[in-house]
Amino acid sequence: MAAVQPRPLPKVLFLGLIPVASWFILRPMLEPYPAIPAFYSSLGFSLFAFIATIYLIPALGPTFINANLKGRDLLKIYDNPIPESMGLICASVYILSLIIFIPFAFSTPIREQVLASKPLEGITVPEFPHQQLSVYLSSLLSLVLATILGFLDDVFDIRWRHKLPIPIIASIPLLMVYYAEHGNTNVVVPLPLRSIFGTLINLGPLYYVYMALLSTFSTNSINILAGINGSEASQALIIALSVIVNDLLYLPWPVDFRIPLHLLGSPAEVEFGGVWSAGMAHGSRELVERHLLSFYFMLPLVAVCSAFLYHNWYPARAFPGDTLCYTTGMAFAVVGIQAHFSKTLILFFLPQIFNFLLSSPQLFGLVPCPRHRVPRFDRDTNLLHPSKALFLTPPAKVTTMILHIFSTLGFVELTVHPKTGVIFETTNLTILNFFLVRFGPLKEKSLVKVLICSQVTGTLLAFFIRYGLAWLVYDGDRR
Amino acid sequence: MAAVQPRPLPKVLFLGLIPVASWFILRPMLEPYPAIPAFYSSLGFSLFAFIATIYLIPALGPTFINANLKGRDLLKIYDNPIPESMGLICASVYILSLIIFIPFAFSTPIREQVLASKPLEGITVPEFPHQQLSVYLSSLLSLVLATILGFLDDVFDIRWRHKLPIPIIASIPLLMVYYAEHGNTNVVVPLPLRSIFGTLINLGPLYYVYMALLSTFSTNSINILAGINGSEASQALIIALSVIVNDLLYLPWPVDFRIPLHLLGSPAEVEFGGVWSAGMAHGSRELVERHLLSFYFMLPLVAVCSAFLYHNWYPARAFPGDTLCYTTGMAFAVVGIQAHFSKTLILFFLPQIFNFLLSSPQLFGLVPCPRHRVPRFDRDTNLLHPSKALFLTPPAKVTTMILHIFSTLGFVELTVHPKTGVIFETTNLTILNFFLVRFGPLKEKSLVKVLICSQVTGTLLAFFIRYGLAWLVYDGDRR
Repeated sequence: MAAVQPRPLPKVLFLGLIPVASWFILRPMLEPYPAIPAFYSSLGFSLFAFIATIYLIPALGPTFINANLKGRDLLKIYDNPIPESMGLICASVYILSLIIFIPFAFSTPIREQVLASKPLEGITVPEFPHQQLSVYLSSLLSLVLATILGFLDDVFDIRWRHKLPIPIIASIPLLMVYYAEHGNTNVVVPLPLRSIFGTLINLGPLYYVYMALLSTFSTNSINILAGINGSEASQALIIALSVIVNDLLYLPWPVDFRIPLHLLGSPAEVEFGGVWSAGMAHGSRELVERHLLSFYFMLPLVAVCSAFLYHNWYPARAFPGDTLCYTTGMAFAVVGIQAHFSKTLILFFLPQIFNFLLSSPQLFGLVPCPRHRVPRFDRDTNLLHPSKALFLTPPAKVTTMILHIFSTLGFVELTVHPKTGVIFETTNLTILNFFLVRFGPLKEKSLVKVLICSQVTGTLLAFFIRYGLAWLVYDGDRR
Repeated sequence: MAAVQPRPLPKVLFLGLIPVASWFILRPMLEPYPAIPAFYSSLGFSLFAFIATIYLIPALGPTFINANLKGRDLLKIYDNPIPESMGLICASVYILSLIIFIPFAFSTPIREQVLASKPLEGITVPEFPHQQLSVYLSSLLSLVLATILGFLDDVFDIRWRHKLPIPIIASIPLLMVYYAEHGNTNVVVPLPLRSIFGTLINLGPLYYVYMALLSTFSTNSINILAGINGSEASQALIIALSVIVNDLLYLPWPVDFRIPLHLLGSPAEVEFGGVWSAGMAHGSRELVERHLLSFYFMLPLVAVCSAFLYHNWYPARAFPGDTLCYTTGMAFAVVGIQAHFSKTLILFFLPQIFNFLLSSPQLFGLVPCPRHRVPRFDRDTNLLHPSKALFLTPPAKVTTMILHIFSTLGFVELTVHPKTGVIFETTNLTILNFFLVRFGPLKEKSLVKVLICSQVTGTLLAFFIRYGLAWLVYDGDRR
């Protein structure tokens, strides 16, 4: 059967981006010299990454299908093969753009003489200190390993129970270099616990366990919230954008203002910009550098994810495969670890955490778990309905209790034997089926929009917790 | 058809290596403390890499066959599928062992207090300086990229003309970090040219072109000398061993001696060992560190290649795929570049250079190039004969001339039209066919042994040129 036709590209529009991208890359060499030259180069490379991805995906589709990397869309009336594992293209473009960016972030031979004679006011980051290069490279190494492991997962189709620990392997370079660089393993203790543990606690080896688990969490939590067109890429896109917004709060912008949270009676405050104070960095050059590093990793990720989403949007012309989830998940773990904001990062995963908690009775075997838990497609109405898991034997007491709690909260719909009251069917325990239980049958396109809305709401809530409530458990001590 | 049975493993023998490997890894913590602790750890990790590879290859064979990574052996009477691309396992074990090795080479927290109070005599390298970590990581990144590209080549089966430049992509991290670290782009000018160029010449961007081409050369030259059981792995093994022997000449061994080349009337001399002079390093700590770095990259490569060769030896139970060639080729380029002995490295490729020069009329289209140029297998006698390329149209004048020269030198056998004298057939232009032309039909096992002998002879010649003749064109100035 013929493969689906790729989505057409308005070529002029996208090719028009090339001069814009080139200007951003060249901007650091033009007067007036910017305070953070690599910031512009990053924008330029991200635009190029966007253009490359949006062109390469339709161009390489037939190659992927020939190499048997193809799948059928279970939620469509047609059966034509669609190229699968195309996250590999996103990952390749992403990693290559991060590699070519190295000399721009870590070496500014043209400008260094000029700057020496005419210093700019405020915090400038003309180039990263070279010990940061190891950090950057170990992050890249983890990303490449995550990509290769994700692709191997696609090729060898590893069972999901076996693949849970795979991201730990990819995080090894990160951990090894963290150790070799004598990385900080202290954490700031929340206020209520300080009487027991003191202000700082050295987690030692436990900190490494925490970092390894963070990568597993960020990778798998995106991977299990999948199954409909655009779901993986849109999650990654919004989380990356959330991280970027958070990073921008720590950079030395020429304009500055203060969000008047005290008017709401909160002692917390959010500052933004200022060439010396650099917003929430409060003048700490180290915090500026950390969040710049995070920004440099997130911006091209936004570029490749949005370019991919163009082709993955309903009705999908390309599938991401596990490769996309592994690479994006590892990218989030990398910035959380290297820029030291892992707690804030986790807050951006609220829908994923909800989905994981909801899924856990199926993941841990209390409720039967079919191979696919995607919503059920009704060919006649073109609507998605919650898919169901059938109990072949009556559920255990604890399972019954959990399912009744979920049902009361409106998370699942149960089918109960009219006489005995025994549960014999439940909707599958995923956030997608939960949406369908709540909002009734939806078109696939509407369901992914609901998912996107929940992700954006989660981010807003995350910012409120981080900047509005964090003073309840933390003082300003952010080591 | 059933897959071929894997080669049996004498388990006790190999499992017996585990305590030995563990001792080597622990050795740096035991008194008397060694001058170069990571040297022992490297030995230990290489032994573990050997054990892991020799076990994983037969264990994962069926998985590879299920994922359609399989091939048939063209030079056998049976047709059973054999797992292909198993160089991926070698590459994974190799890279993982290099990653886990990082803290051992770059961080020695246990010993640093001890050593401070009781310094050892001679050149010690208790840990690498941290700026070298970037160099190490960029090398690893290039290796991982080479692996992923090699595997993609296997999956997508890229045409050979298109894949020639692929190693250049993998070398980008190397080049970027070399640039960001303001790497040296000067080369020492050979004596006869010094009147024109001076002692040192700054190649600038050309140096980067040279480094990129080196990786293409080392990768592809191994890749085109392939086709019989054990050929790729044995080439890589012998080149890696040659590099190791060369590295050992630059390390601070407790024993020292001098090879009396002056007795042969040569002004050159080869020194070995000495805790302060460190053999050919002549007391330069920098040269010791460079060759240690090279040693750390080569030793686990020897381990995985020899473990792979156990299963790839005639009759092969596993095929390497392009992945092995890409990874090993990039590993050689990495050490040549990072440890600054690329000219010596190229000397270890003499059979590959001969094969490339011999092949060039076919590679550049002067002589027809069939899909496979492997020798022809005679099922009745179990012997290999030279395979032939047929001219559909009479060859051009220059082609005829080249082929007649090759024929006079005994490199090829031509079939000439008895009346017109026009060449209408030639043996394929590879070193394997050349051996068969010279030595007559051979068994596959004998042919690979001839190849190995030629590689060893090449190495001996290389050492003679490097240490016996280099004084003719270079003085002692080795920057």
